[in-house]
Amino acid sequence: MEQPTLKVESGFLRFRIDFSYDGSAFSGWAKQPDQRTIQGEMEVALSGLVRNRVDLIVAGRTDAGVHASKQVAHFDLPERDKYGKPWNTQDLQYRLNRMLSQEIVVRAVSRAPDHFHARFSALRRTYIYKIADGQQDIDPLKRFDITPWYRHLDLSRLNEASRRLLGDHDFATFCKLGGSGTTLRRLEEFSWQRMADSTLLARVTADAFCYSMVRNLVGAVVCVGESRFEPEWISSLLANKTRVSESMVFPARGLTLIAIEYPADDLLEARFKVTARRRDEE
Amino acid sequence: MEQPTLKVESGFLRFRIDFSYDGSAFSGWAKQPDQRTIQGEMEVALSGLVRNRVDLIVAGRTDAGVHASKQVAHFDLPERDKYGKPWNTQDLQYRLNRMLSQEIVVRAVSRAPDHFHARFSALRRTYIYKIADGQQDIDPLKRFDITPWYRHLDLSRLNEASRRLLGDHDFATFCKLGGSGTTLRRLEEFSWQRMADSTLLARVTADAFCYSMVRNLVGAVVCVGESRFEPEWISSLLANKTRVSESMVFPARGLTLIAIEYPADDLLEARFKVTARRRDEE
Repeated sequence: MEQPTLKVESGFLRFRIDFSYDGSAFSGWAKQPDQRTIQGEMEVALSGLVRNRVDLIVAGRTDAGVHASKQVAHFDLPERDKYGKPWNTQDLQYRLNRMLSQEIVVRAVSRAPDHFHARFSALRRTYIYKIADGQQDIDPLKRFDITPWYRHLDLSRLNEASRRLLGDHDFATFCKLGGSGTTLRRLEEFSWQRMADSTLLARVTADAFCYSMVRNLVGAVVCVGESRFEPEWISSLLANKTRVSESMVFPARGLTLIAIEYPADDLLEARFKVTARRRDEE
Repeated sequence: MEQPTLKVESGFLRFRIDFSYDGSAFSGWAKQPDQRTIQGEMEVALSGLVRNRVDLIVAGRTDAGVHASKQVAHFDLPERDKYGKPWNTQDLQYRLNRMLSQEIVVRAVSRAPDHFHARFSALRRTYIYKIADGQQDIDPLKRFDITPWYRHLDLSRLNEASRRLLGDHDFATFCKLGGSGTTLRRLEEFSWQRMADSTLLARVTADAFCYSMVRNLVGAVVCVGESRFEPEWISSLLANKTRVSESMVFPARGLTLIAIEYPADDLLEARFKVTARRRDEE
């Protein structure tokens, strides 16, 4: 990967795009030559619309099948449109939604500060993970973002196991191999609740996540939730830094990115400088 | 249509099945030779499972694209399974869910009283209708049962128009032509609320509905909600009994059957006798 840069090319302006997607039928965010991806479809639509090649830099590079209700990306455009007029961001949003499939919804397009970098300026990301445990029925209209799980899961055991992961740790145990950078992360929230419809919902917040980290974390605490292991097992996993079994990685389907938090405008550049060195975060 | 009968054939038992479906990709409930229907898929699965031809009689014969979170049907089986054992209804439910696509979820299979008739024993049906008005974004994961509407709709005007339809009326105005029976119905509830996510939700309850009636009712009150007509217009529609324009029928997508209510077991037969004469209700 080339060295990340914050600089907006001369004669260009930076824009921010906020959007949501149902990831079910996509091979994830990142462009791939022969697969349907969110980045691929959005860049084609946006490039056609502005008559210029557009590259999107996204906050959370979600994997195949993962959803996002609040995703953020940035892109740069020439200062003027083809008629020599300033860009009409509301019009861009409207036209994009007309071009894109119903699986992707653009919620806003706006001018961004020059120092805004969707990925490296972010302070933290929040995901949710939904499980329908104990063979409960899943409402067919709600099946797209819930993972069914055969066994009953104990809420307080899930929470006790999850609490042991909070704080600053080397999360190598829960990161798929292959990343080039650090696996040090700050896990700020990892808590479970049982919803009115009996499903389980986890909220997971960290400064950043390495590849498939949330799905690894969920898989590990589920082992405690179903009483296969005791909560202490989670602490030993973390201490040993050995990779957990691939079979414990939970499906993408249950995972949704719900928030990206950025600092105030005057702190964007400083934040970029801190995180851009760590390269593989998302 | 043949004369409806309540009788269980000698040597057979009556069963009730409670289920839900995402109707998006189906040509409605009713079996059709070359189309994918809910009745078609369920009868094939059930007939294969019990090694006997099974006919399902459903409470609400939903149209193409309409959903159901609580649908009810009945069917009859020989007293014993192929091993000469009494039917295991939990096992039937489990196996059906394994055979059916994820769009249909069987919530329960149970023995029913001999006088239970899913369609003609029902006291009332409740539907909901969801609209995202005023060009608001629809969360892509929730897009399957919401109808987008360009204009803003006024909640109190919707409710005032809907109130005028409550009670016993001849709803010929709102019934698609072709039904053989009466169009007299008792509309018990028709009310709107704005949900936390800004969408509008209507609840509509009646003893029974004629074909496309809910979608006609929604289309008419939306004309008042967007201030195209005054609430009095609804009353005159009802009084004139002329069919409303086809263009006012709202899309199937926003419509979900959410409840069927039955009387106590000892009143099932009496209820059947009252309603079976009216034939075209659903």
